[in-house]
Amino acid sequence: MTKRVYNFYAGPATLPLPVLEKAKEEFLDFAGTGMSVIEISHRSKEWEKVMTDATNLIRELMGVPNDYKILWLSGGASTQFFMVPLNLQLPGKAMEYVSTGGWSSKAIKEANIYGEVKIIASSEKENFSYIPKDVEFSEDIAFGHITSNNTLYGTAWGYMPKVPKDVPLVCDMSSNIMDRSIDVKDYGVIYAGAQKNLGPAGVTLVIVREDLLNRVPEHTPTMQKWKIHAENDSLYNTPPVFPIYVCKLALDYMKEIGGVKEINKRNVKKAKLLYDVIDSSDGFYKGHARKDSRSLMNITFTMSSPELEDKCVKGGTARGLIGLKGHRSVGGMRASIYNAMPFEGVKELAEYLKEFQAENQ
Amino acid sequence: MTKRVYNFYAGPATLPLPVLEKAKEEFLDFAGTGMSVIEISHRSKEWEKVMTDATNLIRELMGVPNDYKILWLSGGASTQFFMVPLNLQLPGKAMEYVSTGGWSSKAIKEANIYGEVKIIASSEKENFSYIPKDVEFSEDIAFGHITSNNTLYGTAWGYMPKVPKDVPLVCDMSSNIMDRSIDVKDYGVIYAGAQKNLGPAGVTLVIVREDLLNRVPEHTPTMQKWKIHAENDSLYNTPPVFPIYVCKLALDYMKEIGGVKEINKRNVKKAKLLYDVIDSSDGFYKGHARKDSRSLMNITFTMSSPELEDKCVKGGTARGLIGLKGHRSVGGMRASIYNAMPFEGVKELAEYLKEFQAENQ
Repeated sequence: MTKRVYNFYAGPATLPLPVLEKAKEEFLDFAGTGMSVIEISHRSKEWEKVMTDATNLIRELMGVPNDYKILWLSGGASTQFFMVPLNLQLPGKAMEYVSTGGWSSKAIKEANIYGEVKIIASSEKENFSYIPKDVEFSEDIAFGHITSNNTLYGTAWGYMPKVPKDVPLVCDMSSNIMDRSIDVKDYGVIYAGAQKNLGPAGVTLVIVREDLLNRVPEHTPTMQKWKIHAENDSLYNTPPVFPIYVCKLALDYMKEIGGVKEINKRNVKKAKLLYDVIDSSDGFYKGHARKDSRSLMNITFTMSSPELEDKCVKGGTARGLIGLKGHRSVGGMRASIYNAMPFEGVKELAEYLKEFQAENQ
Repeated sequence: MTKRVYNFYAGPATLPLPVLEKAKEEFLDFAGTGMSVIEISHRSKEWEKVMTDATNLIRELMGVPNDYKILWLSGGASTQFFMVPLNLQLPGKAMEYVSTGGWSSKAIKEANIYGEVKIIASSEKENFSYIPKDVEFSEDIAFGHITSNNTLYGTAWGYMPKVPKDVPLVCDMSSNIMDRSIDVKDYGVIYAGAQKNLGPAGVTLVIVREDLLNRVPEHTPTMQKWKIHAENDSLYNTPPVFPIYVCKLALDYMKEIGGVKEINKRNVKKAKLLYDVIDSSDGFYKGHARKDSRSLMNITFTMSSPELEDKCVKGGTARGLIGLKGHRSVGGMRASIYNAMPFEGVKELAEYLKEFQAENQ
């Protein structure tokens, strides 16, 4: 078997090794059924237990209040980009978005199909290198929308925007869900593609306050209504079985190691290691995100030339530190260090970056 | 490890054991990457090869002409129920459906959102026990739609309906794709949730003739346009990685055993074994589907009382023949014997049914 590498790709991302080992171990015989988990009926009691457990673990780890529904849907966050405005639109009321990167731009594009969209703050003019300050949503709008972490640019919200009491705040948490403790009550809807911080690609977590389920227009395709999925405990149609199952194993693991508080402690420590390398490099590495807007998940930086960056990426690959090439929107390099990235991987990367600087400056 | 059972559930369904073993074997280290297949980037060359291979295998095994696109989407056939009328609607033109069971009823419901739907034939009055004869679609309609196999009722189309040259025929093949050779050119669009005959739940195959990609209205959410997925080789957003990967392994296996022709030969033999038990039972077992409309995939039958049926289902479970309870729409029993169900499983079931009759009549 090839030596296990450290995977710094932006997603699909690394998963905890014990989770992968457990999935492998029981792959041919799930829960004593004599079948693989990908063969069992989604109406069987064994499968219902997987979904109930996964849902209860989200509720427990994130502290989701009882008046919120937890849904496991397919289609990725890209599908929620239109399902959010479709399900939350109110006739004659605007939808307000904050533009902080490529993903929020995509969300805004889809919302335009459903009504008036107002971009109330944007960092686009400075290549999305920061989170706008003092953001305040208006009274009397359908909803407000933010993207809590911006994978491409390496920024994250470090404060809560001001939201009028009756306005639901919607948040795309795809790239940093559970990277820190949050108060779910601050949000009307939280959504997240699983493939960065929760599990494998193919399933999307949606947490939605119950009173928001009834806004959706009647003549909407069944599969596009959160309400239908909520009423059917995400079993209206055959769910993406294996991705949900692996999320459940990963959530078990997160609970075992101490929950979100412990995960956050580790994340802060991991991110500091890399930001310290950047900040003490005398400009050899230039961080893209402003210090007050730095992400714990995606560390973006550039160097003095594309040739040097390329050399650094290749040297990393040779040492088993893979996926370090930055997204084209920022260029340079990006290290994605999601919840499941072990401290050892980040430590190896930090050491490599210091060595690389010593040899190449 | 528990003894492997024979799984007669309607789906998710049994998969070939060598496919499961291969997936297990390489689960921690895919293609020498030092990562699990669920961890690798969907933009990596290793992943692109999986998708290209899966697509090429579909093209080869089904004989898909070059002017058809092959898409791997999420959301199940239930999502295609609205994506079909959305992508194929033509202003002022009707959409014609044949109503042959629960799934086609659901497809019809979604189409009603997009325009005038005409049900040109239906077997609903006789509890969907047959496929209507001499079906002929009208000139000058947006498209015609059929469901090739009806999972709940155990019926399948045994002939091609008449379709005017310029009308695209759309077919939901979720429950019998590749159970026999077809001529793809007879169809404008073929779609199938993977979890019965292709692989695990979480991915849907859509085969669409290229000239049909441009009908979709411009102001449609990006994720709902086949055209976008076609232009991006199903990589517009992160695809459901693991389900596609297992489909690829299953397609490799199907090719290895001789392709669709051989699979059909085995399916005919398997189905005959069970229909012969029913037909020679002197009415102890009553087949639900008319003989001319029988499915090769789902064998539905009832007995003289629910108590007897229940006893038979329980006796089967005790022998490792599981999932035999019929759907509530027909009652009684149902044996789903998809492509991957081994002959030995069907043989054991046939023997059990004969024994059960001898002991209980």
